Amino acid sequence: MRVAILGVGLIGGSIGLAARRRAGASVCGYDPDPSARGLALKRGAIDIQAGDLAEAIEGAEAVFIATPVGAIPETLRDALELAGPNCVVSDVGSTKDGIAVASRDERFVGGHPLAGGETAGVEHAREDLFDGATWYLTPAPGTSGVLYERLHRLLASFGARPTAIEADAHDRLMACVSHLPHVLANVLVAQAAHALDAEARLPATGPSFRDATRVAGANTGIWTDIYLANAPALIAGIDETVERLREVSSMLRAADAGAVSEWNERARADREALLGAGLAGGPVHELRVSVPNRPGVIAEIALALGGAGVNIVDMALSPSADNSQGVVALWVRGDEHARRTQELIADLDLPVARA
Amino acid sequence: MRVAILGVGLIGGSIGLAARRRAGASVCGYDPDPSARGLALKRGAIDIQAGDLAEAIEGAEAVFIATPVGAIPETLRDALELAGPNCVVSDVGSTKDGIAVASRDERFVGGHPLAGGETAGVEHAREDLFDGATWYLTPAPGTSGVLYERLHRLLASFGARPTAIEADAHDRLMACVSHLPHVLANVLVAQAAHALDAEARLPATGPSFRDATRVAGANTGIWTDIYLANAPALIAGIDETVERLREVSSMLRAADAGAVSEWNERARADREALLGAGLAGGPVHELRVSVPNRPGVIAEIALALGGAGVNIVDMALSPSADNSQGVVALWVRGDEHARRTQELIADLDLPVARA
Repeated sequence: MRVAILGVGLIGGSIGLAARRRAGASVCGYDPDPSARGLALKRGAIDIQAGDLAEAIEGAEAVFIATPVGAIPETLRDALELAGPNCVVSDVGSTKDGIAVASRDERFVGGHPLAGGETAGVEHAREDLFDGATWYLTPAPGTSGVLYERLHRLLASFGARPTAIEADAHDRLMACVSHLPHVLANVLVAQAAHALDAEARLPATGPSFRDATRVAGANTGIWTDIYLANAPALIAGIDETVERLREVSSMLRAADAGAVSEWNERARADREALLGAGLAGGPVHELRVSVPNRPGVIAEIALALGGAGVNIVDMALSPSADNSQGVVALWVRGDEHARRTQELIADLDLPVARA
Repeated sequence: MRVAILGVGLIGGSIGLAARRRAGASVCGYDPDPSARGLALKRGAIDIQAGDLAEAIEGAEAVFIATPVGAIPETLRDALELAGPNCVVSDVGSTKDGIAVASRDERFVGGHPLAGGETAGVEHAREDLFDGATWYLTPAPGTSGVLYERLHRLLASFGARPTAIEADAHDRLMACVSHLPHVLANVLVAQAAHALDAEARLPATGPSFRDATRVAGANTGIWTDIYLANAPALIAGIDETVERLREVSSMLRAADAGAVSEWNERARADREALLGAGLAGGPVHELRVSVPNRPGVIAEIALALGGAGVNIVDMALSPSADNSQGVVALWVRGDEHARRTQELIADLDLPVARA
């Protein structure tokens, strides 16, 4: 397979290393910074340095846009113009709704690997950066099933866990599970600093404050961009938090022990549901789904499973001879996920069976 | 020394073990539950089971009220009636302002050890429960210096770090560093559960969500009491959080990158100031302070040092022969704390010198 990478920093470089070493792909990379291109070549993240986008994309079967967030929309437009009809184009930006609205091309699948942290630069790129990492994909109804499957398999070969999600749900989710905890951490330290005298130090309290503020004041350059890029979803999340805090305040003002107990018990149950079960272990099961040859059916399946927390370990699409329909093989881990997958796909009115 | 413990659960039992084994005290315990008393005796947490409060307190030089929070005010009234003039009475409740307002007896010093966590019952009592733990004390202007010093030394012998703080500041501080993080954790999980589909599981996101929600849904029995007992300070804390969240929301709506960056940088600095410096290490220094024989002077010194984050490792009060004045010896750790202690005490117009 021929892979093009546009922007060879930490993420682009790691995609290159994984694509070459784990998927046996040939990788052509472009970066506006010639020294980044040179270093990527030297580190083995790319096979070929391209002099421009067109050279990078020519003949590619998969294109990854790994530029800074601000440059993604323009790069995506150019990439879709230059790419062939049988080429999947994806990006790695941390917000997905804006880009999904901007492009409805059947070759485009928005992506967001949850990996990389706070370092930057191809010098930190690693073949195993995506091992076990959730890699969100935001297929749309018009997305090509064949191209989605190719991308899914490629990411799985990197060691990642590709997980389909609606673009707007992705942004709300990231606001809730990542951006909002960062905002609350910043607010808590500011409030504590204000509550204590100027020279006071925090006593050795329980670990709740340390835990809750561990991410306070995270890398300002990176996080200012993230907060602003996801501002709509984050503002909605903050508004909801304010509303929920007001409810707690009301219970306390009313000294309503029953309501406080019930609220706390619900939080316990919510946390267990969210984190306790986690990803199920167990043997990998293969399921076969007969699918009509219509756009969007692969996206529907992927979104249904992603929404229910079922991780698709691998998938393979086999069209029938006349291309009127096909079979999708799905591999999921654990008896419970296999059972759930059968239910979810049956709910989509598609025939499904254990292989 | 004879110590009385009213309520022999986890905290009362641990005080008993520490008092007997580390301070060489004789411990008399009372609990309305005869089986708890019996178990405390069997575990060596008390020397003698008392049949009622009067029997427990008779002859005691220090009384600890370690009942459930709701029973503290009444038990305190009874204890002060029964205790002799040379007996210090303290409690271990997690909020201090209400009880400080209720009792202005010179023998009473409110207390709150930051230890114990989520277990309960004398069967979990441990001699070393307070090792290195901050043990807040809330001396008032009328508090007896002699009795405060006795309590301080007793707690230090348990391995705790007694730290003086104003009662209302204590409640605000606990609201900010403990109760509010718990409220925010509960709110965050509720919000995430609501954001995801009913059956969804959280993906393997970064650790910020796990950290921020580790204490969500903490023991409902204990935390409902804590939230309600500290409701005034907690409501004020929630109101302040709401206000701060609104400011963040405004910056995001205005897409004000400069303001967001600056806010994030301040959070980083605040966190470093609060947690980074921590408790200074170094050799222990002894300082001697000449004090007039007037009520409140020991409380003033303790509060000044506590407010500046200087931990008093140990203290000893030696009255002059005619009782008109005396010398307080203070031990603090580290050159910086010793220097700061001299400054703070000089600010109180008291003569102070390194020993």
